[in-house]
Amino acid sequence: MSHKLCAIPGPVEFDPMVLEAMSTPATSHVDPAFINAFGNAIELTRKVFLAPTGQPFILAGSGTLTWDMTAANLVEPGEKVLVVNTGIFGDWFAECLQVYGASVKQLTAAFGDRPAFDDIAAALKADKYKLITITHVDTSSGVLNDVKAIAEIVRRVSPDTLIAVDGVCSVAAEEIRMDEWGLDVVMTASQKAIGVPPGLALMVVSQRALAVAKARKAAPTIYFGSFAKWLPIMQKYEARQPSYFATPPVQLILALEVSLKQLVAGGMDERFAKHVAASNKVKQAIERAGLKLVPASHAIAANTLSAVYYPEGVAPADFLKSFSESGIVIAGGLHPLHNTKYFRIGHMNVTATEPENGHLDKIIAALDKAVKTLTKA
Amino acid sequence: MSHKLCAIPGPVEFDPMVLEAMSTPATSHVDPAFINAFGNAIELTRKVFLAPTGQPFILAGSGTLTWDMTAANLVEPGEKVLVVNTGIFGDWFAECLQVYGASVKQLTAAFGDRPAFDDIAAALKADKYKLITITHVDTSSGVLNDVKAIAEIVRRVSPDTLIAVDGVCSVAAEEIRMDEWGLDVVMTASQKAIGVPPGLALMVVSQRALAVAKARKAAPTIYFGSFAKWLPIMQKYEARQPSYFATPPVQLILALEVSLKQLVAGGMDERFAKHVAASNKVKQAIERAGLKLVPASHAIAANTLSAVYYPEGVAPADFLKSFSESGIVIAGGLHPLHNTKYFRIGHMNVTATEPENGHLDKIIAALDKAVKTLTKA
Repeated sequence: MSHKLCAIPGPVEFDPMVLEAMSTPATSHVDPAFINAFGNAIELTRKVFLAPTGQPFILAGSGTLTWDMTAANLVEPGEKVLVVNTGIFGDWFAECLQVYGASVKQLTAAFGDRPAFDDIAAALKADKYKLITITHVDTSSGVLNDVKAIAEIVRRVSPDTLIAVDGVCSVAAEEIRMDEWGLDVVMTASQKAIGVPPGLALMVVSQRALAVAKARKAAPTIYFGSFAKWLPIMQKYEARQPSYFATPPVQLILALEVSLKQLVAGGMDERFAKHVAASNKVKQAIERAGLKLVPASHAIAANTLSAVYYPEGVAPADFLKSFSESGIVIAGGLHPLHNTKYFRIGHMNVTATEPENGHLDKIIAALDKAVKTLTKA
Repeated sequence: MSHKLCAIPGPVEFDPMVLEAMSTPATSHVDPAFINAFGNAIELTRKVFLAPTGQPFILAGSGTLTWDMTAANLVEPGEKVLVVNTGIFGDWFAECLQVYGASVKQLTAAFGDRPAFDDIAAALKADKYKLITITHVDTSSGVLNDVKAIAEIVRRVSPDTLIAVDGVCSVAAEEIRMDEWGLDVVMTASQKAIGVPPGLALMVVSQRALAVAKARKAAPTIYFGSFAKWLPIMQKYEARQPSYFATPPVQLILALEVSLKQLVAGGMDERFAKHVAASNKVKQAIERAGLKLVPASHAIAANTLSAVYYPEGVAPADFLKSFSESGIVIAGGLHPLHNTKYFRIGHMNVTATEPENGHLDKIIAALDKAVKTLTKA
C-alpha cells in the first residue's frame, strides 16, 4: 500500500527511527534499559520546553488529558479562570475547566482573530483569576497567540495568576521558552511537532504551580491524572529507579526518547527558525495562488499549520480529492461554524525541518495543481 | 541486543504482526482505512468480551483510566460502592472511587485469599449499593475472583446494583461472558492478554449502565474520560464515519485490530482453555519444585499469572537474576506488605496460546534451574 504524505495538523510525518522504536518487542516497564530511556525522555522534555526548572509529566493519553490534569490539580471549585479564546480548542478547554468546577470567563475574538492585549490586561485588572489559559496555536483557526507578550501582561497586572499554555500544536515548533517567559503549565501531545505517534499526553509544570497544587484545600477530583500520584513516579524514573503507579506506554516512550534526542540535536532555536521558514514558504505559495488565510494577518498566523479559505466556487470534497490524487492528505476545517469554508495543511516536524525530503515542494505543487485545475473548470 | 522473554504479568510477549502494525507510518485519524480499522476493533472488542449488546470504549490511557471512567460516570457523590478486595488493586480502585466522591465499603480477605460469597451476600443485604466492583485477577496476589458466582449473588440479592469488573489481568484469557453473566462494566488494558503494547484503556459498558450514566443528576467530574463525549465518537467510528473529540492513538489501535482478529479466530472458548492449560503446566512445575503459591488454593489462583513464594532462604535478587541469566524477565512481588516474599510469572497471550513457541518450557526450565542452584548453595 503506497503511503500518502500526512500533511494534516497532526498526526505528522515521523522519522523512520521513531517508527522503529514503536515496534520494540515486549519490554518490562521496570526493565533497566526502559527506566533509563524514560529518564532520558524526562530530561530531554525539559530541554525541548526550555524549562530547566520545570517538572515534566509524561503519560498515556492525548493532549486533552492535560486539560483535565491542569483543571483538576490547579483549580479549586469556584475559582476563576480566564480563557484567551482563539478557536474551538478554547471553547473546549473552557468546558473542561467547568467540568472541574472552575468559574470561567472567556475572552473571544472574531474567527481568525485573537483577543487584544488591552482586553486581556483589562480583564485581569477587573477580577482576580487563579489561572489564565492561552491556546498557543488553535488548530481550528490557525491563529497564533503571542504567549510571551501575554505572560508579560499577566506578570505585570496579576502576578499571582498561574499561566497555562495549551501548546498541543506549538511545542517543539513555535518559539516557547517556558522558564524565561515565566509560564506555569505547558501542555502538548506526542503526534504534533514532538514527532511521535499519538498516544502520549505531555506537560511541564512549574515549581510554583506544583506548590499551588500541593497547598490546595479541596482534594483534586482526578485519579489517573493526579499530580500527586505521578510526581514520585517521574522523580523515580529520572533517578533511574523502578516505580509503579499505572503501566507507562513503553513503546511510545521509547519512540519519544528517540524523537526528543533528534529535536534537541541542533538546538531549539534552529528548530523554531526552520518551522518559520517552512511556514513562510507555504504561505507565500498560498498567496501566490490567490488564496486567503483564515488568520486575520500573517503576523498572527501559526507556523505549524496553514488554515486557508477554499478558492471561491470550489467544493471542499473536490479540493481535498485533488490533494489526495497528488499523494497528500490534508485536513478540512474544524470549527463547527466555518468548517466547510477552509482547509488546513500541517507543516511540522520532518516536513518542516528536513526540506531536502521534498515534502514542502510536493505540498506546494499539489496546491498549485488543485487551484489551477479546479478554478479553471 | 538479544531480547529476553517477557514473562511478567504484563506487558506480555506480542505477536510479530501486532508489533509491525505499531510502526505504521503517519496516518490521519480520519483516514478511511483507519476509520475502518477502528470500526473493526470496536466490533471485535464485543466478541472478545462476549458482549454482543455492550458498548466498547477504546482510548489512549492505561487500565487505571478505566477506573476513573467507571467512578466518574457511574457513581454520584455520596453513593455507596462495595469493593470486593483481593489485593492492592482493590485498595487502589477504592481510593479512585473515593476521589470521585463515592462512599466505599471494602470486603477484604487475608493476603492470598478472597472474600467469601456469604459475606458478599450479607453486605449486599445490609446496605444498598449503587455499584459493586470485583477485581477478576488481582495482579498483586494472583488471586482469581469467581465473577460469575458473585454476579449471580448480586442479581439475586440486589438486582439494581451495577456490576463492574476490573479485568485488566483477565480479559481475553480468563473466562468472562459479559452479557451472559449480566456484567455492567468490564475494564482492561492493552498490554495483558489483549496482546498489544501498553497505552490503551479498553472497557465495555452495558446498555443498562449507559442509561444510568445518562440519567445521573450531578454532572460527571471528568472530561477526557467522559462517556457522553466518547459515545458518539465510538458510534461514528463503528458506522465507518469520521469524527473527532481527542486524537486516538492510531498505531496502537491498528495493532489492536490485528491482535483482536487473532484472538477471536479460534473462538474465545479455545483461548480460555489454552490459558488454563498453560497455567496448569506452570503451576504443576511450581509444585514439583516444592514451591508454594500465594493464592490459598489452586482453585482460586489466576490462570494468567502465578504468584509464588520464594524458596526459603533464597534472596529475591538472586532468584530474579537466575531467571535473567536464563533469558527470562519475571516480576517481583507488588503488594507493599509482602513484596519481598514472592515473585510473579505471567503466562498470557502467545506465551500461553502457542505452546509450540517454547515459552512455557523455557520458563519451567529456568524455574527448575533457579530452585536447584539456589537452594543447594
